[in-house]
Amino acid sequence: MARIVMKFGGTSVADLDRIRHVAARVKREVDAGNEVAVVVSAMAGTTNRLVAWCTQLSALYDAREYDAVVATGEQVTAGLMAIALQTLGVNARSWQGWQVPLATDDAHGRARIEAIDGAELMRRLQSGQVPVVAGFQGIGPDRRVTTLGRGGSDTSAVALAAALGAERCDIYTDVDGVYTTDPRIVARARKLAKIAYEEMLELASVGAKVLQTRSVELAMKERVRVQVLSSFDDGTSLGGDLPGTLVVDEDEIVEKEIVSGIAYSRDEAKVTVRGVPDRPGVAAAIFGPLSAAAINVDMIVQNVSADGTTDLTFTLGRADLPRAEKTLGEHRAEIGFLSLLTDREVAKISVVGVGMRSHSGVASTMFRTLATKGINIQVISTSEIKVSVLIDAEYTELAVRALHTAYGLDA
Amino acid sequence: MARIVMKFGGTSVADLDRIRHVAARVKREVDAGNEVAVVVSAMAGTTNRLVAWCTQLSALYDAREYDAVVATGEQVTAGLMAIALQTLGVNARSWQGWQVPLATDDAHGRARIEAIDGAELMRRLQSGQVPVVAGFQGIGPDRRVTTLGRGGSDTSAVALAAALGAERCDIYTDVDGVYTTDPRIVARARKLAKIAYEEMLELASVGAKVLQTRSVELAMKERVRVQVLSSFDDGTSLGGDLPGTLVVDEDEIVEKEIVSGIAYSRDEAKVTVRGVPDRPGVAAAIFGPLSAAAINVDMIVQNVSADGTTDLTFTLGRADLPRAEKTLGEHRAEIGFLSLLTDREVAKISVVGVGMRSHSGVASTMFRTLATKGINIQVISTSEIKVSVLIDAEYTELAVRALHTAYGLDA
Repeated sequence: MARIVMKFGGTSVADLDRIRHVAARVKREVDAGNEVAVVVSAMAGTTNRLVAWCTQLSALYDAREYDAVVATGEQVTAGLMAIALQTLGVNARSWQGWQVPLATDDAHGRARIEAIDGAELMRRLQSGQVPVVAGFQGIGPDRRVTTLGRGGSDTSAVALAAALGAERCDIYTDVDGVYTTDPRIVARARKLAKIAYEEMLELASVGAKVLQTRSVELAMKERVRVQVLSSFDDGTSLGGDLPGTLVVDEDEIVEKEIVSGIAYSRDEAKVTVRGVPDRPGVAAAIFGPLSAAAINVDMIVQNVSADGTTDLTFTLGRADLPRAEKTLGEHRAEIGFLSLLTDREVAKISVVGVGMRSHSGVASTMFRTLATKGINIQVISTSEIKVSVLIDAEYTELAVRALHTAYGLDA
Repeated sequence: MARIVMKFGGTSVADLDRIRHVAARVKREVDAGNEVAVVVSAMAGTTNRLVAWCTQLSALYDAREYDAVVATGEQVTAGLMAIALQTLGVNARSWQGWQVPLATDDAHGRARIEAIDGAELMRRLQSGQVPVVAGFQGIGPDRRVTTLGRGGSDTSAVALAAALGAERCDIYTDVDGVYTTDPRIVARARKLAKIAYEEMLELASVGAKVLQTRSVELAMKERVRVQVLSSFDDGTSLGGDLPGTLVVDEDEIVEKEIVSGIAYSRDEAKVTVRGVPDRPGVAAAIFGPLSAAAINVDMIVQNVSADGTTDLTFTLGRADLPRAEKTLGEHRAEIGFLSLLTDREVAKISVVGVGMRSHSGVASTMFRTLATKGINIQVISTSEIKVSVLIDAEYTELAVRALHTAYGLDA
């Protein structure tokens, strides 16, 4: 017997038939003797419709009212799922965020979970009842409904798993696990049986959108074992191999790959600030105003100085580029640069793996592989378990395929 | 300056344009210096869709989950209305039933309001904020969401008006007031400027579905002045005549009409129990089992006895007829009747007016008028302010028109 949190995303509960299908899946876990809590998203399409209504009434809508409106999507699914479970003879009841309660801060629209009182849910679990919790929502300090931001139901599920001391948090989605890279680009991509929290975080942050980044951070902090799996195939996690990908502590992964996955992101832009005086404080003069404008800068490279001036290159989200140009233009006098060069046609390619910590040569394999294919590297950045390069966006698929082969990841 | 509760039904908030229109109407009352609280229904069609989902998952759905699902409709409207009001520069915020709180009993799906804590809303009103309250819903003793039954938002509004000591509760709907009879039948029907609570109750109970019956009972008990008016015309209640119908205490109506209105109901059925022994206890033997089966009996007539047996005739809601036949059949031995006659093709016609209390001849005018038109009266029942007759359904329109003229109600 185990205690499990099962989370179902919007496509998994898109209509009454899918809700019935999910209810049958939950029943299997209950019948196997497990204590099960369920977390649900809104039915696919619902959240978009509710958001559109708010936006159409006012581009500058009150985020507190937005939350009150948008949170109803998950409440509907939770009630319907409870009815579907009861119909199968499973003792179930729905819980809205304020009923649990799942307490958050007051950052409406992107609230952070502060505490979950799991006592009542625990009593229900132990009495054989299945709590069906509306994901994505909580209650703020002023007793108003809050939401956790897009993908927030993942975070609800992980936080609930931590509060309930669950053995596992199963995230059912429309993909059946985490792959060594995007299978749409590399047909021979392999599903990973296990991946470390840190790897999942790096992959999520470079565009592999299987789990909300915050949910992985929380899982790592609370040591919640997260399993990503599909609600669309009929495999079951009962007995035998787990069908999805388990996101776990690095220590649980015995056979560590040096590289676990290749990720890419095309949502990048590159900015080069030319001819800035090479003196202390110039980086602060550039990045201070960007930070004040809430623009996240990713990779940064400073060229070797010549004739007392230097060039500074950095990357940022492509959507932020217009605001970044405007901000730097407004601070041109203080920074004292010659010109700005921008490039939207760039992609970031990353190789990720906790095995890098104990293996050298990962970066040089990457550089050599790209060179062989004639791909020019524009910027490089590294972390303990990741090497990222910025390249011309045209070469994205070529680079991903070449690296997938070079690191021995092909199935 | 007055304190007003404004309630808007589903057709009045059916889409974003209508919500904007309603917001402008609320703003007019605010700009006139009034303290305004708003109660909203779900956008037209929403409740039906949510109910259908519950029903499709299970004909025997859990009423507590049904309530959690269905109550979201009003929550969406409340949030959107708050945004629409803010867009017009009106300080507004939404309130869900549990936030007010609006406490009910635990009869999920048809809960009764037990208490409203108006203290916080009162503070908001006095600070110039417009509370937008989700109608139709409350919170039960077990802290779960409850709903008040179809039309329950009327009752929410009246209860809120009582809790806030409001001067008036304006019910905006798709009709512009209460008429002397159904204008679809009598083109010369007149809108009533005022009607007494008791009259409104009698009219509501015989099929004039302008207000939920319970909301009128509550208004009468709490002495809340209710105004029924249309959200679709552009008249305003500011200055000059009130455009709708005011439902008030009888004492406020100076020029009392003897008859205020003619109502009809076609949702009736008649049952005659033939040849029952004429002895004490036989009525109890018939109506006891019907009451136990939760079947409401309306009019009752017992014939004069002949040869030791008698006939008993009664009316009930047409939808209950099959269950009534079954119930009486099961108790045939105890009752000892000869046969059952049923008739679905009957209609109940009622003349209503508080003036009847001090005027005689109202009933005889009714009987004479119907006789002149050749309409046979099958059953008669009277109350202090109402005379009802059961007739062949074919004569419904003829009877209503003749009575409307006979009592001098034609415009």
